[in-house]
Amino acid sequence: MTEMIRVDTATRGSLVERAMDMVRDYIETHDLKVGDTLPGEGSFAAELGVSRPVMREAFGALAALRLVDVGNGRKPRVGAIDGSVMAASMGHAVNTAQVSLAHVWEVRRTLELRTAELAAQNRSEEQARAILSAAHGLSVEHDEEARTNADTLFHQTIAAASGNPLFYQIVRSFEQLMAAAIPKAWSGRTTAEEREETLALHREVAEAIAARSPERARAAMESHFASSIGEMLRDQV
Amino acid sequence: MTEMIRVDTATRGSLVERAMDMVRDYIETHDLKVGDTLPGEGSFAAELGVSRPVMREAFGALAALRLVDVGNGRKPRVGAIDGSVMAASMGHAVNTAQVSLAHVWEVRRTLELRTAELAAQNRSEEQARAILSAAHGLSVEHDEEARTNADTLFHQTIAAASGNPLFYQIVRSFEQLMAAAIPKAWSGRTTAEEREETLALHREVAEAIAARSPERARAAMESHFASSIGEMLRDQV
Repeated sequence: MTEMIRVDTATRGSLVERAMDMVRDYIETHDLKVGDTLPGEGSFAAELGVSRPVMREAFGALAALRLVDVGNGRKPRVGAIDGSVMAASMGHAVNTAQVSLAHVWEVRRTLELRTAELAAQNRSEEQARAILSAAHGLSVEHDEEARTNADTLFHQTIAAASGNPLFYQIVRSFEQLMAAAIPKAWSGRTTAEEREETLALHREVAEAIAARSPERARAAMESHFASSIGEMLRDQV
Repeated sequence: MTEMIRVDTATRGSLVERAMDMVRDYIETHDLKVGDTLPGEGSFAAELGVSRPVMREAFGALAALRLVDVGNGRKPRVGAIDGSVMAASMGHAVNTAQVSLAHVWEVRRTLELRTAELAAQNRSEEQARAILSAAHGLSVEHDEEARTNADTLFHQTIAAASGNPLFYQIVRSFEQLMAAAIPKAWSGRTTAEEREETLALHREVAEAIAARSPERARAAMESHFASSIGEMLRDQV
């Protein structure tokens, strides 16, 4: 523990970064995969010649970034890529006005026009059914939470069906911001006709994906974005 | 310090998460902006009734996610959104084969067709010049590092010129993976004609952005991706 007192903060910070790099290098050179166990803090600390507290801080930072999983007193394990890391970053950027919601929706729109296209090419039969089912699940009146969940599932299942796990993780990272925005978007659609239009646009995306038509899926997703969250984007582009 | 021994790891983990949430809430409710100072660890620890080590761990995790900046012995400050967080996540996913390079390039392509379009709409005169200058800077033979830097700058300046800081941060997060991939892409272009073709495609993107032509900029970026990194994408889509 004496090292914590002796070493100044800047030096300590770079020690922690070196310790983080060492764990990353270990994962890469040993060709480890998600769930594989890593040597403990003590072993890395001895190898690098740093104190346990420095190594603990490094593991804490790696766990925050989901590169390692240190939960429940088990040995540390290699972590799975997780949209929550980007979500934390984006949520913070929105909360501190570094990025507007319109900026986020524009990025979402860009990605999801492509995931709709790719899903139409790559979806399995099961995914096609799940997307249709989420689209139909949106027609629950008087249960905002169920509708928000179905809407979130709709977009995430399309991203998963794209076949590219990076699209899926990025789309998942919008979840928290969507949980706040979806009820607002629906509350702007007050008449039965407006609500039916929104439902029809979701169904059209789902049907185009089921029909394996990339162009139609992209066009339908574009109409959906223009209609449901067009207001939020209007002052942006 | 006795708490570190008494409390089991799972409980400790949830304490750290509560502590992180408390700092996030503080930033949001006080409407803090990048660079604003936060109360120190001790103050948060007393407020939440947790130990200093738990609070230190929470600040460490928040710093890893770049939500706070705790460097150099200063008081903690509100952090700026930083592509390095998503970069760490993506680099790890590629190193552990959760995501392939082809997946990453497909996401990049999707985003950069749009940043090219938006840059043509929103770029300043200075940005238009910087993009042209980066495109011309690529024609350095025999200096791989200078060329990689110019290529990286080219893509990042276009993303910045889109006017959407989230696009810019995501494009920045590809930097490390690009630093490895760009020299490989160039090494595949061995004849003077092939190299000139790549240079011409970059110049065409830059000129379309300078000419404020979104369609031309998007089409040129699409040709650039098809030509320069088409091989990497071919087995993907």
